Amino acid sequence: MRILAKDIAAHDGDAIDVSGWVHRIRNLGGITFVLLRDRSGLAQLVYESDPGFTHESVVHVHGQVQANEKAPGGFEIHVTATETLAVADPELPISVNQNIDEVGIDALLDHRIVSLRNPRVRTIFELQAVVVQYFADYLRGAGFTEIKSSKIIGSGTEGGTGLFTVDYFGEPVFLAQSPQFYKQAMVASGLERVFEIGAAYRAEKHDTPRHLNEYVSLDVEMGFIDSESDLMDLEVELLGHVFEGVARECPSILEEYEATVPTREEMAKTPRISHDDAKGIIKKRTGKSAFEINPEGERELCSWAHEEHGVEAVFVYGFPRKKRPFYTYPEGQKTRSFDLLFRGLEITTGGQRIHEYPMLLETLPRFGLTEEGLGDYCTIFKYGCPPHGGFAIGLERITQKILGLQNVKEASLFPRDRKRVRP
Amino acid sequence: MRILAKDIAAHDGDAIDVSGWVHRIRNLGGITFVLLRDRSGLAQLVYESDPGFTHESVVHVHGQVQANEKAPGGFEIHVTATETLAVADPELPISVNQNIDEVGIDALLDHRIVSLRNPRVRTIFELQAVVVQYFADYLRGAGFTEIKSSKIIGSGTEGGTGLFTVDYFGEPVFLAQSPQFYKQAMVASGLERVFEIGAAYRAEKHDTPRHLNEYVSLDVEMGFIDSESDLMDLEVELLGHVFEGVARECPSILEEYEATVPTREEMAKTPRISHDDAKGIIKKRTGKSAFEINPEGERELCSWAHEEHGVEAVFVYGFPRKKRPFYTYPEGQKTRSFDLLFRGLEITTGGQRIHEYPMLLETLPRFGLTEEGLGDYCTIFKYGCPPHGGFAIGLERITQKILGLQNVKEASLFPRDRKRVRP
Repeated sequence: MRILAKDIAAHDGDAIDVSGWVHRIRNLGGITFVLLRDRSGLAQLVYESDPGFTHESVVHVHGQVQANEKAPGGFEIHVTATETLAVADPELPISVNQNIDEVGIDALLDHRIVSLRNPRVRTIFELQAVVVQYFADYLRGAGFTEIKSSKIIGSGTEGGTGLFTVDYFGEPVFLAQSPQFYKQAMVASGLERVFEIGAAYRAEKHDTPRHLNEYVSLDVEMGFIDSESDLMDLEVELLGHVFEGVARECPSILEEYEATVPTREEMAKTPRISHDDAKGIIKKRTGKSAFEINPEGERELCSWAHEEHGVEAVFVYGFPRKKRPFYTYPEGQKTRSFDLLFRGLEITTGGQRIHEYPMLLETLPRFGLTEEGLGDYCTIFKYGCPPHGGFAIGLERITQKILGLQNVKEASLFPRDRKRVRP
Repeated sequence: MRILAKDIAAHDGDAIDVSGWVHRIRNLGGITFVLLRDRSGLAQLVYESDPGFTHESVVHVHGQVQANEKAPGGFEIHVTATETLAVADPELPISVNQNIDEVGIDALLDHRIVSLRNPRVRTIFELQAVVVQYFADYLRGAGFTEIKSSKIIGSGTEGGTGLFTVDYFGEPVFLAQSPQFYKQAMVASGLERVFEIGAAYRAEKHDTPRHLNEYVSLDVEMGFIDSESDLMDLEVELLGHVFEGVARECPSILEEYEATVPTREEMAKTPRISHDDAKGIIKKRTGKSAFEINPEGERELCSWAHEEHGVEAVFVYGFPRKKRPFYTYPEGQKTRSFDLLFRGLEITTGGQRIHEYPMLLETLPRFGLTEEGLGDYCTIFKYGCPPHGGFAIGLERITQKILGLQNVKEASLFPRDRKRVRP
């Protein structure tokens, strides 16, 4: 039976089988040390003669466990039999066992199939899986139902710009920018509380360290709310749970990245400031007036929150009507909407939505929209929809900010940008 | 504080608040009974005079709980105050409170925003969410990592037919038919065991009760297997866990549909028969020879398994090479592949994959493929990949078969077919 690298210490003196990739080879003349990598970690193999491996070949070995304080975990395997399961080409496009921080972002992504083998890269996605798990876990516990909505839509609810076109049996249709329409429909269907984990698409040409053309959206929508405050309350609890899960399940990944996550108690202190006050704080700290909150402003606000409230997160609410989508619930010239900034980056946009059909009909012309142009969207409200709202968290962005990655593309397994549709 | 319909019995004599949709109105002259529907069920409201509601309007009411053995759950609410949160148009396109089985599939899907409000329809998706939850739950427990791969691909791994084309900044790219390439890449990356829950696309023109052009694929891929038997073992355990979860979490939905799920013990008895033997069984039972296993044959095989083995599921393995994709591990003229048939329908295709680079290169020309034509696919194997394999379960198909739905489209929130891209 195969033993994982992390478990060999429990088999001191035993003859065991291990399998994995040839991570590093050190030939010391008479003896060869091979670091074997499997999903759990590294194990040191000892050969009396050179086994003739190439790096990244996959092997299955049999041998005896012996203590060696210099080996990873304090034990090594003296190999008695080896089976090579796959031979790797000796010319790797990038070296897997090197310091991956010395590999540029383009090489990292061009040779993604190989760069993902580097444990420092791979573990980003182990942590990301934990984020997904705890996101769903919290919401199920709060009475939310997971939904899976179509990503192929006949018309855009966000106004029609920035959509990728799909040839659907000769008809032009679009890739959904968000499940906005569907999550609202499912609140109105009577599920009341829904979440979705799915792909979202933005056909925007900007190529920056904070944008992806395809990303995973963690979407939440909740009925019977009183205002957007209920949503901010929910998100604080939700993220507290997610961060707690990450801290519990991924201590070694956080350590590798010298990263920490806010505690539940810290998240509860997240300040909530109006859009106007946010601009005031930015002006006071930078000396610059801003018409809108730009990336520099987002960083300033998070620094302010850290200094004043002990948490690197801040809600900004009360965005002006013209800066939010048509479906945002108005409050005079402002809206019942918010962003959550975390460690200098907007990771969430949310808000209460218009649920009253007459108000929606009155709003559409202000945005140059018509009921017909929105397809079936308005029927959600025509037939009775409770007050509701929601938010979405970008999975890659929150992963990036947890680990302190330079570029959001590092937090996407196979990122898509202006120039990249492969691998 | 709002009380859910299912909980009012615990508040006998109390003044409480409830919220929901006006499901049914019975005006008996002096008194009006209103069934209020919320996410938890139905509650009876009693009005001394006609409240003037339209069906499906959303209301918040305050009143006193009193026992009434004729009311749902044995209690009703004598209303003292009502707030209408949203007024529904009195002309509903389909009636929500009618027997939904009398509504044809086209009306059910054309008016999806409204038909999803029918509790019998809505609960399909509550059960589906439980399938997703337990699928992920089992796999995490078995050391699998959840991944999210791109659905926008530069080239097809399945041979290029049946792909939807996307205009990606002027370049033609495709919607992925499956995460096949990516889940194999992630096994090779060292995650070893991965699963993905995501959309898959088939640009196939058939419009049948068993096909969707967009569906949710529950994908599994596992490294260091000995043969496809390991995968069948895994799937039996996995489905046993999923069915157990459904039985535990959804007893009233199963009862509503007069449905049952196999127990874990029953699943363990799932027979495994070769493709040749399967054709023999079909011939013996129907008197007809078959070159391949058609839908009628799938039903016969499940009946056979039920009669002979006490479970409505059967694995068919050893498909001929020409009936399986190029990446399937060959075994002479057969392959190490399998289907799982459940209640007369193929719900899974799986198998061991070719992991040796030389074998892959030798195989490609037999399928008219080239290394270059497959983009980055072959680099997975060039640099060392363990023996591995996997399978995929169609979420809508398994949901359909659990509940005994006539058409797989009923198990998709917003199905996409040859003619349907809305709502």
